[in-house]
Amino acid sequence: MSADERLLRVRLDLAYDGTAFAGWARQAGGLRTVQGVLEAALAVAAGRAPGPVPRLVVAGRTDAGVHATGQVAHVDLTESQVAALVRRNHGVEDVGRIAERLTGMLAAEGDVVVRDAAIAPDGFDARFSAVHRRYRYRIADTVAARDPLQRIRTLWHPRALELELLKAAAEPMAGLHDFAAYCRPRAGATTIRTLQSFSWERDAAGVLVADVRADAFCHGMVRSLVGASLAVGTARLPPERMGQLLAADGRTGEFATAPAHGLTLVEVAYPQGAELAAQAERARARRVSVGRPSMG
Amino acid sequence: MSADERLLRVRLDLAYDGTAFAGWARQAGGLRTVQGVLEAALAVAAGRAPGPVPRLVVAGRTDAGVHATGQVAHVDLTESQVAALVRRNHGVEDVGRIAERLTGMLAAEGDVVVRDAAIAPDGFDARFSAVHRRYRYRIADTVAARDPLQRIRTLWHPRALELELLKAAAEPMAGLHDFAAYCRPRAGATTIRTLQSFSWERDAAGVLVADVRADAFCHGMVRSLVGASLAVGTARLPPERMGQLLAADGRTGEFATAPAHGLTLVEVAYPQGAELAAQAERARARRVSVGRPSMG
Repeated sequence: MSADERLLRVRLDLAYDGTAFAGWARQAGGLRTVQGVLEAALAVAAGRAPGPVPRLVVAGRTDAGVHATGQVAHVDLTESQVAALVRRNHGVEDVGRIAERLTGMLAAEGDVVVRDAAIAPDGFDARFSAVHRRYRYRIADTVAARDPLQRIRTLWHPRALELELLKAAAEPMAGLHDFAAYCRPRAGATTIRTLQSFSWERDAAGVLVADVRADAFCHGMVRSLVGASLAVGTARLPPERMGQLLAADGRTGEFATAPAHGLTLVEVAYPQGAELAAQAERARARRVSVGRPSMG
Repeated sequence: MSADERLLRVRLDLAYDGTAFAGWARQAGGLRTVQGVLEAALAVAAGRAPGPVPRLVVAGRTDAGVHATGQVAHVDLTESQVAALVRRNHGVEDVGRIAERLTGMLAAEGDVVVRDAAIAPDGFDARFSAVHRRYRYRIADTVAARDPLQRIRTLWHPRALELELLKAAAEPMAGLHDFAAYCRPRAGATTIRTLQSFSWERDAAGVLVADVRADAFCHGMVRSLVGASLAVGTARLPPERMGQLLAADGRTGEFATAPAHGLTLVEVAYPQGAELAAQAERARARRVSVGRPSMG
């Protein structure tokens, strides 16, 4: 990097099939991760252009096997690196071509797509500027609802579930609570979160779909909420017990975490304009008390 | 089969991911086919119950790699066989359980699901009673429209396609025509068909979707129509040429057949009541002149 070359922040919109990934986060030891695959492609495409080693910052650090259709990340690059990535002398106007370039490099497997690339607005931080994350969890609980073409993103449950029980159990969960019973513990991180919404519906194909939205999730939270719902839907747990567990100070053996492959990160929302930086300030400050805010 | 045991006709509603199948039709030589897998499961589940070797008759004999969400087949079984399949002493009331039984036996792969099973109404023939078959073909022609979770059923096309060109080319195709330019030739079979509708739209996710409906298709017809459309959409073929080719007496080198994995059989429609048998009579009579009517 030449001393006077400023960094451009590029926003990437991503989709991936999590089946063959050990989650989002780059890991030592050769495990295939979404971050690892994308950073490697960025480094190869940027070539010898001066600039930092490309490093992604992501909105939702999905676990192994979890999918995304609406993931967002950012990467800081020099103009020289952007130009190399889009194969133009002056690359900033053509930054959208980064999406085609990276997607093309990863097309052999086809399980990661960069759907869009753009210069991020001032104050944008993919992780800290986000105002909410939204996940969906899909369950086919009858053979009629099982679609082999959707099986990689849908839990096939062997017993029918009562939609009304799921709804009754979900109803008291929204709001500011301590989700200790629904979080995998992390040292030094609180488990207090604001769950903005948690709803169930049966779609036109007969698939049960949970829609879960929060400013941030603690680790394993969506799959724990769905796991408890599965226990409720098969009458192994009374519906009111889900709300009662909000008073517990840790995990219980009353339900199991739902499998990863039914879960998809579908949306990350950001504010407009000056609110981007303000939201990032707030989230960074809060992070000290609540820990990493983006795990599903 | 005891001499006095009458055969019951069972209708099966099927869905499959065609990726790992050498098409619908049972084949010699150990190739994995949908019919082969289902007939083997039926034979295993029926066990030693007296009755014929289970043989399926299907509405749409899909090619290798083609998917189905709305496939229909029938099988003729004795009451003893039905009872063995549903594991009940008297099985006819519980015939729906055949769907769970077969789907459970095939769950390890998960690429075939029997979504429903029922005693067929009088006069029903899965192949000959059908009044139309409907196929969809999905194309993602931008990186924004590529969803890794839908890639097994979607063609990823490297260049953007003009929706208006596709629509203009499709417009004159509907109706009674000789589709010789759009059929893989079969000895003794005519290529005259009634194409009931052929339309293109871009769905909410940006995916181009062709919807193609006919009383019956000649072999390779949908993939040929889509292949010609791809040539039109990328301006390699003038839109009016698709209609002009209806006057050709065979295939040309002007376009390639579209890949199988973008194609899904989504619906087979049947008439009600007495029309089932009447339609079957008409289709059987016509078969003499037009050959096997159900290839996509």
